[in-house]
Amino acid sequence: MSLYQRMMARTEDKLGLLEKLWARMKSDDKENQLVSRIMQTAQVALNASAASLLVLDKRNQKLYFKYANGPAASEVKRLHISRQSGIAGWIARNGKPLLVNDAEKNRNFYRQIDQATGFQTKSIIGVPILSEGKVAGVIEVLNKNDGTLFTRTDLNVMLEVAATMGLAMESARANIDLRDSFRGAMAAVVSLADAREISGRSHSERVAEYALKAADFLNMGKEARQDLEFAALLHDIGKLTMPDRILNKAEKLTDQEWERIRRHPVIGYKLFCNIPVLREAAKLILHHHERYDGRGYPEGLQGEDIPLGARILAVADAYDYMTTGHAHREALSKARAFVELFQNARTQFCPAAVKALSVALQNEPR
Amino acid sequence: MSLYQRMMARTEDKLGLLEKLWARMKSDDKENQLVSRIMQTAQVALNASAASLLVLDKRNQKLYFKYANGPAASEVKRLHISRQSGIAGWIARNGKPLLVNDAEKNRNFYRQIDQATGFQTKSIIGVPILSEGKVAGVIEVLNKNDGTLFTRTDLNVMLEVAATMGLAMESARANIDLRDSFRGAMAAVVSLADAREISGRSHSERVAEYALKAADFLNMGKEARQDLEFAALLHDIGKLTMPDRILNKAEKLTDQEWERIRRHPVIGYKLFCNIPVLREAAKLILHHHERYDGRGYPEGLQGEDIPLGARILAVADAYDYMTTGHAHREALSKARAFVELFQNARTQFCPAAVKALSVALQNEPR
Repeated sequence: MSLYQRMMARTEDKLGLLEKLWARMKSDDKENQLVSRIMQTAQVALNASAASLLVLDKRNQKLYFKYANGPAASEVKRLHISRQSGIAGWIARNGKPLLVNDAEKNRNFYRQIDQATGFQTKSIIGVPILSEGKVAGVIEVLNKNDGTLFTRTDLNVMLEVAATMGLAMESARANIDLRDSFRGAMAAVVSLADAREISGRSHSERVAEYALKAADFLNMGKEARQDLEFAALLHDIGKLTMPDRILNKAEKLTDQEWERIRRHPVIGYKLFCNIPVLREAAKLILHHHERYDGRGYPEGLQGEDIPLGARILAVADAYDYMTTGHAHREALSKARAFVELFQNARTQFCPAAVKALSVALQNEPR
Repeated sequence: MSLYQRMMARTEDKLGLLEKLWARMKSDDKENQLVSRIMQTAQVALNASAASLLVLDKRNQKLYFKYANGPAASEVKRLHISRQSGIAGWIARNGKPLLVNDAEKNRNFYRQIDQATGFQTKSIIGVPILSEGKVAGVIEVLNKNDGTLFTRTDLNVMLEVAATMGLAMESARANIDLRDSFRGAMAAVVSLADAREISGRSHSERVAEYALKAADFLNMGKEARQDLEFAALLHDIGKLTMPDRILNKAEKLTDQEWERIRRHPVIGYKLFCNIPVLREAAKLILHHHERYDGRGYPEGLQGEDIPLGARILAVADAYDYMTTGHAHREALSKARAFVELFQNARTQFCPAAVKALSVALQNEPR
């Protein structure tokens, strides 16, 4: 498999990370809710028996019901209307509003919908929704509840509602673009990180797996657990800014080289601290090389001042390092690795985190 | 300057790229428009003389006018209201709507605003806006235009409007988070790209500068020009996935190594093709190593089949490579570089692009 194929394949693997970032940010529902609320407002304001929003599908030029409320709503939602027929079609074609107070007599009236639904349309206002100067859909209110007819004043209200709807739809569109953009940009970061395999293949995935098991033992909350996972998957990304000659050096690092390596938590933090959904994870990345006795870096935090997630990350990271073979060091057995961790609890590691990892991993068959 | 400081400093430099991506995506205006439209709809629907939206500032617990329409709108906008006073304050404190048909007699009525503005409040409906269960603001309509009083039905309309406004405000908030997220993620990509200085310091910036000058000579449109700039700044980013040992190799590359290097346009394309605002730039990155005679890579496109931006990019890239000193090759003079470009026009380079760059660069004092 070429590097490129491998890179793409691994990106697919890691969609786990992206999907989870995603799930946290989703707000499709909110946009649908906004559209519904605008229609409900119109219906209540005009005291109408029914209201609907039809959206124009640019590809087939048909109008689909995106929202319908009223006695025949569920039947209506299954229908769509050609741009060539009905009052809604006329409005979409001409980009002009229409107030019809005797629908049955209007030559554009499309009887099939009333026939299909059993609803009897008497009075109707339909207004085109314009988005960036083009017709994007049609809103309609049908029949006043009190049996009176719609007025010019009602039409003016509907013109306002249509303008509101146009903006809401544009804003929803912009939101989708933004989400795609963020997803794409994060995928780019993950690809770049993966392609160089800084810390050995799958190190980050294993650290995430171990850290999450320890987190479960400690009953961490859902959000904190997810921040820990993000942090584990991205904890070494700061090393991407360092040349292979330092990262792969067999001999002892010079003080200067060591100084450079030690910056990777800060670099990782800076990379993600401005991404709202990764802000907490960034803090864990920043502190994953702190020591329980305060002799770690970059800030020399001590004990419980180190965020719990970062303390877990430190233990999981060390455990994976010890139990994996490296160029100049053989893998330790699982048991031997735990001896090391326990021996360094209270100095290097948080004792609670060591205990959590040990119970979580020893209780499972491997 | 440490690598880290340099990395951060260069990220600041490159904010140019981010700011421009940004400018293309901005939609703050749309959100303000949406808020205004919702308020206008309410005012028209209720035939009210004035309408206002007050937003609660969580830090100081004061209510600020985000929107006001009516005879005293401009005066009102300069004011703010303590959460402890007035009808709006009562609504914000209690999270309950209020219909007051004799404002002067209501003990919560805050006369100072009428006194300050000269507006005489008679009848008023105020409704709290709830966002994620908390009061985020208050909407109000004041005085019916026809002198009648607000009714329970009017209050019901306002409850719908407030629900709509709550969703619009939540959606605006989500949008800001998303934009911050995208900006942050792109900043991360740029930092990672910069930190390794793949193609030599500032190569990408110079290529962008040259390409834009050629684009101006060819009267490229604003969007196309910006896509070209994005592509130029990011064209070599695919090389980030390759080890230093290949990128910095002094000897001739093996076939296998060469094969790997040749993938960088595809990798760059894949990194950005899913980011809407970078989709066109991604195509230029993909094709910046095509040759005019069809013997380039990755797709062997020929002549005008190669996007114009990619043809310009190829010339600007080659020009900068030739006029910059490298470890194993001295810099050519500007004149000598143009001789090379013209000699390879029609085979390697697009003649129009070579001509554009040559006129654009020779016409300027250097």
